[in-house]
Amino acid sequence: MLTNPRAERVKAVHALGRRSARLRAGRFVAEGPQAVRELLGFRPETVLDVYGDPEGGARHTALIESARTAGIPVHECSPDVLGAMSDTQHPQGILAVCRPVDVPLAAALDGGPGFVVVLTHVRDPGNAGTVIRGADATGARCVVVSDASVDIYNPKVVRSSVGSLWHLPISIGESIETILAVCRDRGLRVLAADGGGTDLLPDVELQTPHAWVMGNEAWGLDPQIRSLCDQVVRVPIYGRAESLNLAMAATCCMYASAGALRT
Amino acid sequence: MLTNPRAERVKAVHALGRRSARLRAGRFVAEGPQAVRELLGFRPETVLDVYGDPEGGARHTALIESARTAGIPVHECSPDVLGAMSDTQHPQGILAVCRPVDVPLAAALDGGPGFVVVLTHVRDPGNAGTVIRGADATGARCVVVSDASVDIYNPKVVRSSVGSLWHLPISIGESIETILAVCRDRGLRVLAADGGGTDLLPDVELQTPHAWVMGNEAWGLDPQIRSLCDQVVRVPIYGRAESLNLAMAATCCMYASAGALRT
Repeated sequence: MLTNPRAERVKAVHALGRRSARLRAGRFVAEGPQAVRELLGFRPETVLDVYGDPEGGARHTALIESARTAGIPVHECSPDVLGAMSDTQHPQGILAVCRPVDVPLAAALDGGPGFVVVLTHVRDPGNAGTVIRGADATGARCVVVSDASVDIYNPKVVRSSVGSLWHLPISIGESIETILAVCRDRGLRVLAADGGGTDLLPDVELQTPHAWVMGNEAWGLDPQIRSLCDQVVRVPIYGRAESLNLAMAATCCMYASAGALRT
Repeated sequence: MLTNPRAERVKAVHALGRRSARLRAGRFVAEGPQAVRELLGFRPETVLDVYGDPEGGARHTALIESARTAGIPVHECSPDVLGAMSDTQHPQGILAVCRPVDVPLAAALDGGPGFVVVLTHVRDPGNAGTVIRGADATGARCVVVSDASVDIYNPKVVRSSVGSLWHLPISIGESIETILAVCRDRGLRVLAADGGGTDLLPDVELQTPHAWVMGNEAWGLDPQIRSLCDQVVRVPIYGRAESLNLAMAATCCMYASAGALRT
């Protein structure tokens, strides 16, 4: 049992809360039973280590078992050690250290017809994770996150994606200009979602392959990026609210696509 | 200029971060320029005091002006004082102390045809505020928050509602059983939104007046509450995501209602 919160191994896991350490080590942390379950269920080959405290181990025996069956080292540690490794105040008894799962842009876009979701300049990790979860829920082919965005391996992104990070192809690290050019090459219509758009969501044709481009939560999409899109689409506001938040607007757009592609 | 962060007045405003103090004082705090703008624009008669630091005052002169024009005392204070009053680490230079705006249930439901949104057992303030904002955006008649829910005057609810608290009638404090009974009396069909529902959202008739009932973010709606509803409706999941979060599911339901009521 690991009991020293100041051990090098513990510090090394804790350090993965920082982007620089994640890049250097080529690994990140999935915290809590839900994330670990999806990780082990969908991408067990990327898991390097599982850590659990006695309570987490007792509560999540099936998870611990499936990790062991997959040949993944499972380390019992004290609650103090788990707390010292974790980004959260309540690490829920279990976490895993794993390898990145992002794929090259071309591979992400190979998923057949439908729609894809592009995030650019999204800075809030909770928003990014929630949109990834929504893309998964609505059956998007993939998610593409531009280089000017939050790191998808940030603990808060991982947490708010609730496992969706391992459910669909995700590409990172390209500039938004490259991403849009490649989307076009693939025959996708490029739709910007923006509160300042001229086309209303219910009027937009969504039955042919397309890419949704979602921008920064505070200032929306840069005019220069909007000009690279085929249409700038606005979710209608029927009441007095000034705007929708990014996750809500994205949810509306993605569900509209899912519905249109299934009719 | 108020410069003493330990002054009684400053402590009294800070205390409004706690529900007990809000109940006792019959007032709450709206923080930041966006909230204060909506408050002054829609419900100026409920504003008791506006506080701004020099930077906030300089940046939001129109707001300060409109408060003064409405006869509301505007107090200049040091950034330290504003920070000591505020619930956030970055109070953005301006806040207002104001009176509650909730209305009795019967009055909230007097708003004519359409749909209403009922929240019960919602505990996360960010979720509650986001759903209130979404109800506003989708043109809901009103929002009804049951007694077993987060306080709508919690600073995080106020912040995440982004002014919507002052845009549409909100009723609080009744039990969910009473709320549903009154909704029925008013001829509203009662639709539970729940991941375990049997009816899929796209198949549900939304053109006649109805009430959406949204439950707790973690465990959904209690079976006993579901049994009081006419239909239990599920937002379809097309991918591998296990579920949607409350705000996303609520957004889908409310936008579906807004769309159906306008066709």
